[in-house]
Amino acid sequence: MLANVSTYLDQHADRFLAELTDFLRIPTVSADPACKPEMQRGAEFVHQQFTNLKMTSEIVSTAGHPIVYAESLQSPDAPTVLVYGHYDVQPPDPLDLWTTPPFEPTLRNGRIYARGATDDKGQVFTHIKSAEAWLRTVGTLPVNLKYVIEGEEEVGSNNLKTFLKENTSRLRCDVAVVSDTSQYAPNQPAITYGLRGILAVEVTVTGPTKDLHSGVFGGAVPNPAIGLAKMIASLHDHDWRVCIPGFYDDVRSVSDAEQHDFRNLDFDETAFQAGLGVTELCGEKGFTTLERRWTRPTCEVNGLFSGYTGAGPKTIVPSTATVKITCRLVPAQDPVQLTEALHQYLKKQCPPSLSFKFTSDHGCPAFVFDTTSPYVEAASNAICEAWGVDHVRMIREGGSIPVVQTFKEILGIDTLLLGWGQNTDNLHSPDEHFLVADFHRGIRASAALWGHLGAMRSGG
Amino acid sequence: MLANVSTYLDQHADRFLAELTDFLRIPTVSADPACKPEMQRGAEFVHQQFTNLKMTSEIVSTAGHPIVYAESLQSPDAPTVLVYGHYDVQPPDPLDLWTTPPFEPTLRNGRIYARGATDDKGQVFTHIKSAEAWLRTVGTLPVNLKYVIEGEEEVGSNNLKTFLKENTSRLRCDVAVVSDTSQYAPNQPAITYGLRGILAVEVTVTGPTKDLHSGVFGGAVPNPAIGLAKMIASLHDHDWRVCIPGFYDDVRSVSDAEQHDFRNLDFDETAFQAGLGVTELCGEKGFTTLERRWTRPTCEVNGLFSGYTGAGPKTIVPSTATVKITCRLVPAQDPVQLTEALHQYLKKQCPPSLSFKFTSDHGCPAFVFDTTSPYVEAASNAICEAWGVDHVRMIREGGSIPVVQTFKEILGIDTLLLGWGQNTDNLHSPDEHFLVADFHRGIRASAALWGHLGAMRSGG
Repeated sequence: MLANVSTYLDQHADRFLAELTDFLRIPTVSADPACKPEMQRGAEFVHQQFTNLKMTSEIVSTAGHPIVYAESLQSPDAPTVLVYGHYDVQPPDPLDLWTTPPFEPTLRNGRIYARGATDDKGQVFTHIKSAEAWLRTVGTLPVNLKYVIEGEEEVGSNNLKTFLKENTSRLRCDVAVVSDTSQYAPNQPAITYGLRGILAVEVTVTGPTKDLHSGVFGGAVPNPAIGLAKMIASLHDHDWRVCIPGFYDDVRSVSDAEQHDFRNLDFDETAFQAGLGVTELCGEKGFTTLERRWTRPTCEVNGLFSGYTGAGPKTIVPSTATVKITCRLVPAQDPVQLTEALHQYLKKQCPPSLSFKFTSDHGCPAFVFDTTSPYVEAASNAICEAWGVDHVRMIREGGSIPVVQTFKEILGIDTLLLGWGQNTDNLHSPDEHFLVADFHRGIRASAALWGHLGAMRSGG
Repeated sequence: MLANVSTYLDQHADRFLAELTDFLRIPTVSADPACKPEMQRGAEFVHQQFTNLKMTSEIVSTAGHPIVYAESLQSPDAPTVLVYGHYDVQPPDPLDLWTTPPFEPTLRNGRIYARGATDDKGQVFTHIKSAEAWLRTVGTLPVNLKYVIEGEEEVGSNNLKTFLKENTSRLRCDVAVVSDTSQYAPNQPAITYGLRGILAVEVTVTGPTKDLHSGVFGGAVPNPAIGLAKMIASLHDHDWRVCIPGFYDDVRSVSDAEQHDFRNLDFDETAFQAGLGVTELCGEKGFTTLERRWTRPTCEVNGLFSGYTGAGPKTIVPSTATVKITCRLVPAQDPVQLTEALHQYLKKQCPPSLSFKFTSDHGCPAFVFDTTSPYVEAASNAICEAWGVDHVRMIREGGSIPVVQTFKEILGIDTLLLGWGQNTDNLHSPDEHFLVADFHRGIRASAALWGHLGAMRSGG
């Protein structure tokens, strides 16, 4: 990396963190309708970052939360990189499990604690600050940069596709860069070449039209909580295999070479289990924990509610019961087809005395990246430089980043998944945090990446 | 009934309703810790009613909510009647299903709508106003009256037993009167001679110590929502029989005579089903709907919650899942023994990867009243007089009134269960109401009852 870029990063490190702190203070919970004004504030914050650098930037309205689009075009010969990230965050509840409030960022033990610290405000911010370092020192960037920072990643990116489809020529680029994954372990930075897909559904079953007295009516009327429990219980067999017909039909087995690579990663199952606080790990019979997380499909209950959930007893037969379910998918499972299979299966399992309502939310297929791409080499070099390591782990992840598949589909490009945080940073949990050193190394790796990519020819 | 008592009831009917309305405005939700000051206000309101009649009255502090005790002693030769009721009410949620707010009593179609309208403020109030009618006209009562009006009926009457045990001599009486049940149907008043017992438990299972990202961790860690669903699903077999070992061991079969009586009650199953809005009724195989509600034990889920319950999706593996369960019991099931049986059964069903926490709440055995008692005749006559009917239905009910068993145990007395409302009055549901005409007939029946009982000698 150029010396003056490197020096700039050192000199402005504290300010970068202070600005991230301001970003984290905005409660951009996209799932919560009450946060709508905060979503606008979040978009404006991002937009301001770009205009401060004199980039072309605009806040694009959508049917949902706005998208911030910015670009800095240097030369038609330089490669064009599309940076994607999101300024929305997961809901912060349960609030009482946070050590400090989720939207009052706090430094402890070299980490910054706040909802969105890693997912994704902290990570996406590195790609803005790296550009700043180039522009404020060299005056230009070695690549053309285009930024798409959306506000609906945590609720299914429902309006992103429309934006991409309506702007295919403006968004033309050579490769995408996304930092919304994790390192393999502390000081073991990684490039993630595989992701699981997802489908999300919600089912509500209804018995009586209103809650009934469980003494007066109990025993003679259908109880939706019990009916729903039986439906959920039917999702997995004793070996924790998913019972939906056809669920595994399109699942490809993992190659011997890949399995070999997985075994070479020093995965400490005991430490992993201890970190989660579970008495034992469990999952689909016949697979290791890493395989279960990276290469096997799942069917998980994310939320469940029926009847009285307050303090003390309440003697009712509830009127309704609701479950939120997501399935993680692997290549080449089809989310649309499996959503319908899940629909039909649950409908069949529903006791005839209950009415059945099924809604499906977002979905996307799994993704596996071409590891022979020259972009991977550039990214690998940049990361080694920033972290001071001699190799980068090639890993898969269990999460879903639907945008990766969308970029392939609509823009025809591959995505470099470069994670700066840890999967133990409590993403989606109370006390989410980001190691400040990882934040700064992320900025440094990003700045180096622009350099390495700039040394390639466009289309390279 | 004496003519001047009857005239007084007519002349003061509107004021009685106005005073009930004031009573209903106080949100005495005993399960909600935030309502503690309102509970005190509720007790003071009741106390004031008695002091207005120059009865000896006091607000008795307990470890929980206060009990109001009042008495009007006329003569050692007259029978002594203990009136029991409760000024606490069920939680009003879900609030959005109320047509008018639960604590803003509203008259519609001859009914007063409010939480507690029938259960039990409206019904217990009849026994205060009936005493008023005697005292303001005749100047004395034909019986000795003792009132115990508690504030914890909806949360298990945890402190009532202590009060009764500490006051056995003060509470000495011949019979108890409780109006916390229902008529058999509109204009078909009834004496309830059987009640089901109850046991109440709560189970929480825990997997990871906090909510986890369902992509990063899903498939490899125990999901407590799924585990709990399997536990709940194991509670009933395909014939809706409860699977807890020994659950039916002590259940007595109902006599042929009683079954015959049940069939003679004109129970309209189609109308019953339509009123509840269910597509079909269901319950333990081999029994009618009335039998399922009155004579068979149940195991119902009253509440269920795990993970994310807000709007939109949230991709987590929840940390915990909780279920609230109550079982209704019939003679001669033992709530203590069955609570332990349920505990052991659920513990055994709990997946080994989840930690298991079991808490039990209140419980009481079922109750069947001696229908040959002369008190029943007095009550029957009083009711026929107030309702203008020629006979009173003898029924059982599926609900539990633990105090009935407690009175038998501690004070050695039987209880007349005289219900003035309907079981369709939305007890424990939104839009609880009480037919104003039933309220007034209840006062009249109560006033007549004091007369009929007064014609008996003490000791029956």
